[in-house]
Amino acid sequence: MNQHIPQQTDIVAAHQRIKPYIVKTPVLRSDFLDELCGAELFFKCENLQKIGAFKARGGLNAALSLPKEKLSKGICTHSSGNHAQAIALAAKLLNTKAYIVMPKNAPEIKINGVKELGAELIFCEPNLEARENGVKEIIEKYGAEFIHPFDNYDVIAGQATASKELMEEQVDLDCIFAPVGGGGLLSGTGLSAKYFGKKVQVYAGEPEGAADAILSFKSKKIEKAPYINTIADGLLTNLSDKTLEIILDTVIDIFTVSDEEILAALKLIYDRLKIIIEPSCAVPFAALLKNKAAFQNKKIGIILSGGNVDLAKLKF
Amino acid sequence: MNQHIPQQTDIVAAHQRIKPYIVKTPVLRSDFLDELCGAELFFKCENLQKIGAFKARGGLNAALSLPKEKLSKGICTHSSGNHAQAIALAAKLLNTKAYIVMPKNAPEIKINGVKELGAELIFCEPNLEARENGVKEIIEKYGAEFIHPFDNYDVIAGQATASKELMEEQVDLDCIFAPVGGGGLLSGTGLSAKYFGKKVQVYAGEPEGAADAILSFKSKKIEKAPYINTIADGLLTNLSDKTLEIILDTVIDIFTVSDEEILAALKLIYDRLKIIIEPSCAVPFAALLKNKAAFQNKKIGIILSGGNVDLAKLKF
Repeated sequence: MNQHIPQQTDIVAAHQRIKPYIVKTPVLRSDFLDELCGAELFFKCENLQKIGAFKARGGLNAALSLPKEKLSKGICTHSSGNHAQAIALAAKLLNTKAYIVMPKNAPEIKINGVKELGAELIFCEPNLEARENGVKEIIEKYGAEFIHPFDNYDVIAGQATASKELMEEQVDLDCIFAPVGGGGLLSGTGLSAKYFGKKVQVYAGEPEGAADAILSFKSKKIEKAPYINTIADGLLTNLSDKTLEIILDTVIDIFTVSDEEILAALKLIYDRLKIIIEPSCAVPFAALLKNKAAFQNKKIGIILSGGNVDLAKLKF
Repeated sequence: MNQHIPQQTDIVAAHQRIKPYIVKTPVLRSDFLDELCGAELFFKCENLQKIGAFKARGGLNAALSLPKEKLSKGICTHSSGNHAQAIALAAKLLNTKAYIVMPKNAPEIKINGVKELGAELIFCEPNLEARENGVKEIIEKYGAEFIHPFDNYDVIAGQATASKELMEEQVDLDCIFAPVGGGGLLSGTGLSAKYFGKKVQVYAGEPEGAADAILSFKSKKIEKAPYINTIADGLLTNLSDKTLEIILDTVIDIFTVSDEEILAALKLIYDRLKIIIEPSCAVPFAALLKNKAAFQNKKIGIILSGGNVDLAKLKF
């Protein structure tokens, strides 16, 4: 396991390592959305990734980086959904066992995704303490290797490959927008922009109802959100020491958006790009829409993070 | 305007002609759907095409094939939706005027799409006679060039480029499934398979509630559907002489599916591919699901035709 902030070579190696297992996701465009924003937009569709989210990249890279004797005892994690599916997929592909501690209020589509991949599910109360205790028990019982959803340099290096791919396909981007929850994707995006971009500036979108990252970004230490209440169920966690350090070094700014703004952005993406995204995934585009005046005529990459949503529960 | 059945060179020329304006749409895959069908599936995502449907290909090819003096008087058509948007887009791109006769019960999202592209809309009763009379008036008044949605060899050659692209990306397909309404896409698919495929067999899906093509396919003459009642609003029209002739020459079989089967296929695609398709677009996949026993271990291309659907009206 990597013990230092991923270097350029680590991200290149991660990409090589996971390439046989992941999808090179398409980059979609829309004349209508370009006109609406006064910019050129390039949507990197990680909702079309294996397990329907970018998390496949980080989970696979972390699992593939383990020594065989560790891998054979299984891997485990706690997650509200997409990282859980990523670890379950990695275990299935690498012929080992996955143990997943999931908050009992996780979306059904994400629970089913984990079950379907053959992982063992352990439900817990929906708070960080219960999640961490659940994992502790698994480690004691089975000796399984814990793969944290974001506070893990191999996971971060894996997530970084999404924007690496985007910049390889679209070499002249001015900036990239990504969502921020625990910060795995955002810190990976920041590193890739730094290593592979030509002066690419990275911005983040965060829900107002889980606004810890913006506070941590300002105070330069881990803060909690003042309150948790948002439709963006994938972005509820706080930053970690590892992700905050990288974000402070590589990210220009974080913009917060309301649930109303998230839903408006989500609807635009459904209508114009004809793809299904989960609410968390609409957050960076919502952030751009709100601040579009500052980004006129720019070439902007937007990482669409995932598409695991119970459609019956969304109101159009 | 082309007066003969498109030859290989016509389809190659059509592809060159429209390439600057269209999207090379992605081909998506799903392990889950492969397992479900016992086959390898390659979904060609024309719902991610400009205007959200393959119709952009045919409309653009027909408009681009017109002499300049004809084009300058404008182009016109009648259509329940996607072809209308294609003609509106072609007129916008080529700086001419589009006149669109649309049945007044066309889906709102398709009406709005046409309006947004700056075309002039003329509403009519939802039957073929009213549509044809509407177009006649436009031609008399403005001298605009009529581009039929499917009974037009340039349109057929344009639609053929979708499966040409698919076979270029995936060279070892055994068969391709396409939907059939008027037969423009299906006849184009049949021609491309014949010219560019290595023994690729073409099959069609048709709604039970608009089942004219299967009758025409059997009797070898244009038949009407016994009744019209289906959620697949893009597949209500009959075949034409031009499309039937090509279909009889190039298509192996046509399978009908119920609305229930269409909706089940649609839901699977939403859940597994994370893309938005309109009900008509789910028809070929529904046809494959229903007949999967005959297609075990095959490599199957499926043309996903369009994504223009009022999501608020779909029940999940």
